[in-house]
Amino acid sequence: MPKELEISVVRVRGASADPARDWLAVERPLEIRARSGGTVRVISTTMRTPGEDRELAAGFLFAERVITDGRQIRALETVDEDTVVIELSPEADAALETARRPFVTSGACGVCGRTDLKALLAVPGGARSDGAPRIEISTVHALPAALRAAQATFARTGGLHGAGLFTPAGATLAVAEDVGRHNAVDKLMGSFIWRRRLPDPDSVLVVSGRASFELVQKAAVAGIAVMVAVGAPSSLAVEIARGAGMTLLGFVRNGGFNIYCGAERVAMARGPALKATSEGSSDVGYA
Amino acid sequence: MPKELEISVVRVRGASADPARDWLAVERPLEIRARSGGTVRVISTTMRTPGEDRELAAGFLFAERVITDGRQIRALETVDEDTVVIELSPEADAALETARRPFVTSGACGVCGRTDLKALLAVPGGARSDGAPRIEISTVHALPAALRAAQATFARTGGLHGAGLFTPAGATLAVAEDVGRHNAVDKLMGSFIWRRRLPDPDSVLVVSGRASFELVQKAAVAGIAVMVAVGAPSSLAVEIARGAGMTLLGFVRNGGFNIYCGAERVAMARGPALKATSEGSSDVGYA
Repeated sequence: MPKELEISVVRVRGASADPARDWLAVERPLEIRARSGGTVRVISTTMRTPGEDRELAAGFLFAERVITDGRQIRALETVDEDTVVIELSPEADAALETARRPFVTSGACGVCGRTDLKALLAVPGGARSDGAPRIEISTVHALPAALRAAQATFARTGGLHGAGLFTPAGATLAVAEDVGRHNAVDKLMGSFIWRRRLPDPDSVLVVSGRASFELVQKAAVAGIAVMVAVGAPSSLAVEIARGAGMTLLGFVRNGGFNIYCGAERVAMARGPALKATSEGSSDVGYA
Repeated sequence: MPKELEISVVRVRGASADPARDWLAVERPLEIRARSGGTVRVISTTMRTPGEDRELAAGFLFAERVITDGRQIRALETVDEDTVVIELSPEADAALETARRPFVTSGACGVCGRTDLKALLAVPGGARSDGAPRIEISTVHALPAALRAAQATFARTGGLHGAGLFTPAGATLAVAEDVGRHNAVDKLMGSFIWRRRLPDPDSVLVVSGRASFELVQKAAVAGIAVMVAVGAPSSLAVEIARGAGMTLLGFVRNGGFNIYCGAERVAMARGPALKATSEGSSDVGYA
């Protein structure tokens, strides 16, 4: 299982747009199972970059103080590309039972207890399919600065993620910030919801950092068609954006950006939209 | 409850170090409770920046598809500075029962079900108390580049968090990377644990991004005394580092950094260590 993945993108620099290749960090769920007395159960599922999965499992249980020493690991095996099974000493098994964090989950949930990417990717909602809204390249370039200008706290602390909704013409609709990037998006969407409104699906979501699986999923649930990230998207973020029919733009900074999918919504000033990127191709998917 | 907090730091620029004031983004747990038919239960606890807590609760339940419309919220109240209670329509209550993610947690865990910061801050482990190890300012300046050089994948994808352990003299011991910053630290610590070793508590942990509560906690559990972050620490990160007797350095880039606590471990080249910062003072804590 590779840690990175090469895909086709449209690379925009200034006003010009050209096909290019780009590398994505791979993001996939890892299921950590514990075997004890003949039974096996799932103790955690985490979105991670493949590789060093046994190290991840051991380090996770160490951080959670289930184990204090590697000798409490009786066995630690990779079952398949997204699953490891650990067998602990009796004392560590007992510590797992009383672990202070609720990472022991039941099989009843949708994310834990399965590594079925198809199920994870079946995000409800998604973007409208008529190619709207359209956004001009020059507007995209200006969005991160508009978000930053609207973030009250970041300037002083440098420590907050921002998320904003903008019109396709670049006007600010709402902005939220938080130490957690997922919280910033929840606060943003929630600012509409709890006032009995829905975020306009034609608005553009801008996030100050990277585009993870989780953030794209939140956008898709809200029916948002265009998402702009200052940082890099993960492989799963691109896969979900494609599945939801969204337009995902990443590395939007310094007068350039990459279009990962949905290029038909990005227009040259007063000109035609760009040619669609390779949606529907399987160069991102594994599932 | 403020979103940001002013504290005393030691500001290092090049080889000089001076007292200064800095602003931290506040990080605290929010407990979201649901009231239904006379009973109230905790449905999620999340580390967040205070403010827009009702928006956060509404947006979270919208993203999880428990509610699809704000009219399914019957009531949404702030109970205290870290708790909100939501009352849902019967159909949304039913959706909460079958929510696809395991965010409904029991009262048996240590983080969910309580917003008691004192309990959260009682991290086991912590740094040795004899002031060791010592690290020179010039070594600190060089660590982020050393981490970046050891990160194989980041250069191509720009999408991976890095975490590394270094000797106090700046030699690389181990490096891990992942789309998730907490995973990167777990992989790093786990690379020792599952080989039946422990990370040397005298080694220096370097992280490529911000220092959150969670990352400092993982370092404290491993007994690591010195943590270096390229980005900003949160208020809770500083509070936990102080409680654990750690040295926490943030914004380590462009020839400068801030010392948030434990300045006595930072030494001028061939000179004395810096005067201790205000550990034990209460200018960070609320608990």
